[in-house]
Amino acid sequence: MSTITILGAGAMGSALATPLVAAGWDTRLWGTWLDDHLLDACERGKPHPRTNIPLAPGTRLFRSADLDAALDGADVVVLSVASVGVEKVTDLALDGIARAGVLMLTSKGFCPDEAGTIELLPTAIRRIADARGVRIPPICAVAGPCKANEVAGSKPTATIYGCSDAAVAHRLAREISTDAYRIEPTDDEVGVELCAPMKNVYAIALGLADGLEAATGFPHHNLKAATFSQAVREMSLLSTELGADPATAYGLAGVGDLEVTGLSGRNKVYGLRIGRGEPARDALDAMVAAEQTVEGVPAAGLAVRLAEQAGLTDRLPLLAAVDAVIAGADDPAGLVTEAVLPGRAG
Amino acid sequence: MSTITILGAGAMGSALATPLVAAGWDTRLWGTWLDDHLLDACERGKPHPRTNIPLAPGTRLFRSADLDAALDGADVVVLSVASVGVEKVTDLALDGIARAGVLMLTSKGFCPDEAGTIELLPTAIRRIADARGVRIPPICAVAGPCKANEVAGSKPTATIYGCSDAAVAHRLAREISTDAYRIEPTDDEVGVELCAPMKNVYAIALGLADGLEAATGFPHHNLKAATFSQAVREMSLLSTELGADPATAYGLAGVGDLEVTGLSGRNKVYGLRIGRGEPARDALDAMVAAEQTVEGVPAAGLAVRLAEQAGLTDRLPLLAAVDAVIAGADDPAGLVTEAVLPGRAG
Repeated sequence: MSTITILGAGAMGSALATPLVAAGWDTRLWGTWLDDHLLDACERGKPHPRTNIPLAPGTRLFRSADLDAALDGADVVVLSVASVGVEKVTDLALDGIARAGVLMLTSKGFCPDEAGTIELLPTAIRRIADARGVRIPPICAVAGPCKANEVAGSKPTATIYGCSDAAVAHRLAREISTDAYRIEPTDDEVGVELCAPMKNVYAIALGLADGLEAATGFPHHNLKAATFSQAVREMSLLSTELGADPATAYGLAGVGDLEVTGLSGRNKVYGLRIGRGEPARDALDAMVAAEQTVEGVPAAGLAVRLAEQAGLTDRLPLLAAVDAVIAGADDPAGLVTEAVLPGRAG
Repeated sequence: MSTITILGAGAMGSALATPLVAAGWDTRLWGTWLDDHLLDACERGKPHPRTNIPLAPGTRLFRSADLDAALDGADVVVLSVASVGVEKVTDLALDGIARAGVLMLTSKGFCPDEAGTIELLPTAIRRIADARGVRIPPICAVAGPCKANEVAGSKPTATIYGCSDAAVAHRLAREISTDAYRIEPTDDEVGVELCAPMKNVYAIALGLADGLEAATGFPHHNLKAATFSQAVREMSLLSTELGADPATAYGLAGVGDLEVTGLSGRNKVYGLRIGRGEPARDALDAMVAAEQTVEGVPAAGLAVRLAEQAGLTDRLPLLAAVDAVIAGADDPAGLVTEAVLPGRAG
């Protein structure tokens, strides 16, 4: 039996224990210094507070102070912390990661380096390792339409694992797949990694269309669908420019994950509030007050800078529109509408 | 001012009058022998019974007996009847169509020829014209995420016009677009034409995931998103095999139209009933009793035959699963799940 250590005991980290235990892995779940209350609940046999599903029986829990023990002998490490914690946890866990055969990554986001250049998380992790002279194993990006509570509850789920060493992705797919949790392997690390934070940005615009319906009593499904289509187009353009396979954005990582994110979730709810007429600032304040982080908000600004780096600013009008909406621009519905409908030139 | 004649006064035919009148067209709406009650309502100034929106003021109405007058001097003809009526109305209107500069086609479906070969509607229309020795103008396929009531109500809408003569598609896009109704022109008649009936078939599977949520009280969003992703993949495979541009299925005609169809509509509701546990036969009977045609049901069987013709049967597992579900197979949820999740081979 191989050993896998999940770093981060939030929704996705804890949820992954369900397929891992079912697939026969010796599964360890390490909580950060922010996760004590989550581990407390699991130890008391209560449902995990983030997924409302009990942790898979047999999962071994480790508190933040016990990182070395959690990593000792791990064949695979999974980094599952919020994107803001990736640099710090990578730094803390670097020696254990270096001893493992693979680093899986469910954390998703953009990370500026010291010069302000926007990097995808695997690039940032490799930079941190290089700076310390540590050699790390292949990174496997994990994404696709996976709501954590459904993964935890063994509901049917398709996910995509992207590693530039395709054999690693295929091996993990064989060794982690269960009846309910199925893995599509690909060598497209960049495509898998990029689509995940981008879909959070675009889900804000999908929510906005729902908000227009709530405000007017009249469906705006055509607008929502046009927004969806434009979002997929922009994810494909940007990821391809960064070296990804065009198919990735059109598959589970792009189309699939955008679909699941548009069905529910905080980014969509934030957009809905704006579409309903709340000023963007008030909408965000209300979400923050309810302890609901809206990942698409910081991601949008970083994505705009990434698009600039890629020379694509003018070809991603929906990204620009969402960024302007977040900044409080007038007429958010008009901005998004103009960004997603075809021009009139013919 | 140019003259356009819409053949078929149902939801989409009547809805198109809104952008056409706004764009300055002399707009005529001809009702078939089944549409008298629809024209009655419009003449009395009531909302159109199918869209619940009043017909655009200035639209001129023609009863079924007045087909020649409706077509006299028409620069453009729009065929907007249910797919089962396409052959008959084409035959009746052929001389008027031949005198027009373009035939636009919002009707969507598959049509078997006398030998049983499945054709797309433009092919069937050209066959009918050839058999009578009549030369018809270019056909422009009209599709994309356009719920008729939103088009009629001037809500923001993106549509795609596909004509193998790209200049025709571009000219129509310029001359019909309004602020609310925008047109993406393409030369991909086949892609635009194929995705529309296919999305009705796949929307049944999307509804099934919703039905599982209704039956179990637990969301199946991951399954719905995996289904969406697989549906897009299959639409792209089949349309490309038939000569379409791969981009079409990934844009408004495929991704966009599937999104809007998965949000609401009869195909989705039929699938939801099955997902909730009703036998397929009972679900269809209930829809028929409520006078709700489920277009995806006959389309699925014809699509399976089209896939056979294209040699793609084994590569469209979701299509096969939906066809089996319609036929009353046991465990519809299991069939769809197995069709859309990646295999376990890695």
